[in-house]
Amino acid sequence: MHPKLLKGNLLLFFLVVLGGPLAVVAQTPVTVQMVTTTEDSLLIRRLADTILTDGRAYENLRLLTKTVGARLSGSAGYYKAEKWGQRVLGEASADKIWMQECMVPHWVRGGKDSASCSGLPKDMISGLDVLALGNSQGTGSRGIKAPVVLIHSFDELEQHKDELRGKIVFYNYPFNPLFVETFEAYGDAVRYRAMGASRAAKYGAIGVLVRSMSSSVTNFPHTGALLYNDSFPKIPAFAVGLHDADWLSEQVERDPGGIKVFMRSGAHMMPDTPAHNIIGELKGTEFPDQYITVGGHLDSWDPAEGAQDDGAGCVQSIEVLRALKAIGYRPRHTIRVVLFANEENGGRGGRKYAEAAKDAGEKHLLGLESDNGGFTPRAFTLSLPDEKLAAIQPWIQLLKPYGVYELERGGGGSDVNPMSRQLGATVGELRPDSQRYFEYHHARNDVLENVNKRELELGAVNMAALIYLVDKYGL
Amino acid sequence: MHPKLLKGNLLLFFLVVLGGPLAVVAQTPVTVQMVTTTEDSLLIRRLADTILTDGRAYENLRLLTKTVGARLSGSAGYYKAEKWGQRVLGEASADKIWMQECMVPHWVRGGKDSASCSGLPKDMISGLDVLALGNSQGTGSRGIKAPVVLIHSFDELEQHKDELRGKIVFYNYPFNPLFVETFEAYGDAVRYRAMGASRAAKYGAIGVLVRSMSSSVTNFPHTGALLYNDSFPKIPAFAVGLHDADWLSEQVERDPGGIKVFMRSGAHMMPDTPAHNIIGELKGTEFPDQYITVGGHLDSWDPAEGAQDDGAGCVQSIEVLRALKAIGYRPRHTIRVVLFANEENGGRGGRKYAEAAKDAGEKHLLGLESDNGGFTPRAFTLSLPDEKLAAIQPWIQLLKPYGVYELERGGGGSDVNPMSRQLGATVGELRPDSQRYFEYHHARNDVLENVNKRELELGAVNMAALIYLVDKYGL
Repeated sequence: MHPKLLKGNLLLFFLVVLGGPLAVVAQTPVTVQMVTTTEDSLLIRRLADTILTDGRAYENLRLLTKTVGARLSGSAGYYKAEKWGQRVLGEASADKIWMQECMVPHWVRGGKDSASCSGLPKDMISGLDVLALGNSQGTGSRGIKAPVVLIHSFDELEQHKDELRGKIVFYNYPFNPLFVETFEAYGDAVRYRAMGASRAAKYGAIGVLVRSMSSSVTNFPHTGALLYNDSFPKIPAFAVGLHDADWLSEQVERDPGGIKVFMRSGAHMMPDTPAHNIIGELKGTEFPDQYITVGGHLDSWDPAEGAQDDGAGCVQSIEVLRALKAIGYRPRHTIRVVLFANEENGGRGGRKYAEAAKDAGEKHLLGLESDNGGFTPRAFTLSLPDEKLAAIQPWIQLLKPYGVYELERGGGGSDVNPMSRQLGATVGELRPDSQRYFEYHHARNDVLENVNKRELELGAVNMAALIYLVDKYGL
Repeated sequence: MHPKLLKGNLLLFFLVVLGGPLAVVAQTPVTVQMVTTTEDSLLIRRLADTILTDGRAYENLRLLTKTVGARLSGSAGYYKAEKWGQRVLGEASADKIWMQECMVPHWVRGGKDSASCSGLPKDMISGLDVLALGNSQGTGSRGIKAPVVLIHSFDELEQHKDELRGKIVFYNYPFNPLFVETFEAYGDAVRYRAMGASRAAKYGAIGVLVRSMSSSVTNFPHTGALLYNDSFPKIPAFAVGLHDADWLSEQVERDPGGIKVFMRSGAHMMPDTPAHNIIGELKGTEFPDQYITVGGHLDSWDPAEGAQDDGAGCVQSIEVLRALKAIGYRPRHTIRVVLFANEENGGRGGRKYAEAAKDAGEKHLLGLESDNGGFTPRAFTLSLPDEKLAAIQPWIQLLKPYGVYELERGGGGSDVNPMSRQLGATVGELRPDSQRYFEYHHARNDVLENVNKRELELGAVNMAALIYLVDKYGL
């Protein structure tokens, strides 16, 4: 919060927005109000103009996806991505660029995963499109083969716990289409991916198949991290595409106990290895030792280009810096772009950044993340108390021309949330439209061609506008 | 407007929405208010549930795009689409289905259009990806060849009017990325497609190339209707893909007067031919002779599947009827789904529908259209006076959980606007997010694969909800 704007406990509410209706007015008692002016509207328009006409976000994403590609922690791709990050932050005219080291898990897929069925009617195609889950153990080179037990929930698993020894458990829990916000469907279903293997291993199962966490009409399997419980054997676990999951479910229901699945994967863990957050800064003019952070994660799963997850967030964050610099804006606070390491299977980069900031005694106003895809923007979440959130509602009139119409209470993403815990910083994230995210998430089709240039850019416009407003008015 | 809800000039404002904040309150003086209740919220949730779980919109679109495909007025595809429309309206349990005949233009592309350059540096590839504009005359089988004049605006055309005789005019007017709402960029650029041929023919040009009206990163040419001015010769006109337009522009700038283009097209007009609007009805229980119409257009351009334009609007409209019937809702007014004929190159279906309704003395409350693609919903426009629009703003709280957060003043699309002129009906349209529409509009990539199932369904949810609210509360 800019101290000049604080007049005791209440600042007169003053809203001048070019052409905007006065429809959104805070309904709750307000202790702090944010002035928004025609000057703000014009400055944000200049940010939009440079991003929509001279923007580098899409071309930077093209370079990342097509010349670097997949970049899982510890892989050669990740180190190539680190170089890309430093170069593009330089091209965006960051005042300072550096690497922040952290140790990251190094999981390796070890070749192509495969799975097939036996016990089927003659002439039926038996292969399944699968991907070993991240952090999964492999099967050994000869693979494993066992009867499949079809399970729809952890409750059902418990009911069948005496029938699981030596079996392969197939979790076929659907991605619930009734959640309009698809991240809620993901939150509902992801426990089977995260915990399903150990829950099944507890009862003697030797392998796990998990229906992909997806709303897709396609059959691409969607990988993602599992978390082993060290109390139980680490059994291999694969994601199965939706068509194949439906098909396998039918086969097992038709002939319970008669269908066997063969699984083979060379997946294995290597020792932890050093990697880096890539950081670029615009130095603040008034409060250079107070920080506003904006970022996405640089790592991706190995089977795809990581275009939506989270190349988009990286290039949008870099674009915020480029655009502010391009229009000659000199921030009051230091603005940092962070390309976080190891979000996908460890979260080490996010934790490292917050810990290092704490160790250095840094003051952080905001950690803003974009890790929900580069889709058309709708909202930001911010971890603000109600009265502060009410005070900034007038900002919506400045963002709405570019698509954001809600500033909601909520957390940040997993890379900035440690800043809340460690530093007491406000955290938040861009909430673009969620309908297409789980078409691509952690799957082979997360490629540049499934990112729309203008949607990506409009996300960056709103992020730049929010960063500007926080820099000007504080939080 | 339901008469029971009118209490003199002002109805007490009463808003009960499950879990919704009371943020959006009409700011203008209000003469009519719409009650919205928990009952409304629950009924709309039931509509959403059936559309998101048992919905037929996507499967119907798959059938239309993959078993019918392109369906330009007068083509065999169009008559196949008429059969599809009758069948799926039957499956959606319409009480009554019929065909409304109208005469439509019958333009035929007549084979593959081609264009290439000469006068280029050696070894340079000379072909251009082009599509003759709809309604364009062809070139004759031997084609035409002439020097290219590069033109950026009609003003520039006038400045060069003495240099155009015997030439091919290439309009390279960009799709302005600064319009956040892409339909504004389209409205700005489309005059070169619509009027460019006759404006150039006036000064003796023999052919026209037009930069595609698109924000795409691809090179697909985007066709669409041109309108000849009968005072001038009807010269052939082609759309050029964006990459090729940039490239051709460079070549002409490098060597003005030195580049010739060859154009060949077999396009020609046939005599007008009969076609039909396909109409399905749910009979009203209280006011069976008062109508609410919802529709999209059944015809499409010939090079694509017409998935977004406007298969999406057709299947969403049919889904409105299916969902209302599926939850057992019995409408007070008669609800009509209309699959309009000939939107793309004539607008005859929309005019016919309004004229027939006028001749029959029908009373129409609303004509609602979906012809902006099946993208994630954001708004509806309605042709209401300000005070009525203010009165229905509380409805937003019922739509917002499904994506629509604005009820704006505006017209309908070109198929329902005649209902306003002829019948004095309120008209409106779904305004989904516009960022991707001009990637696909009138181009070969307007295919099912570029429609997202959930975005399509959420459009239908909001349309069904709005139709329900209008049926219950009137307008």
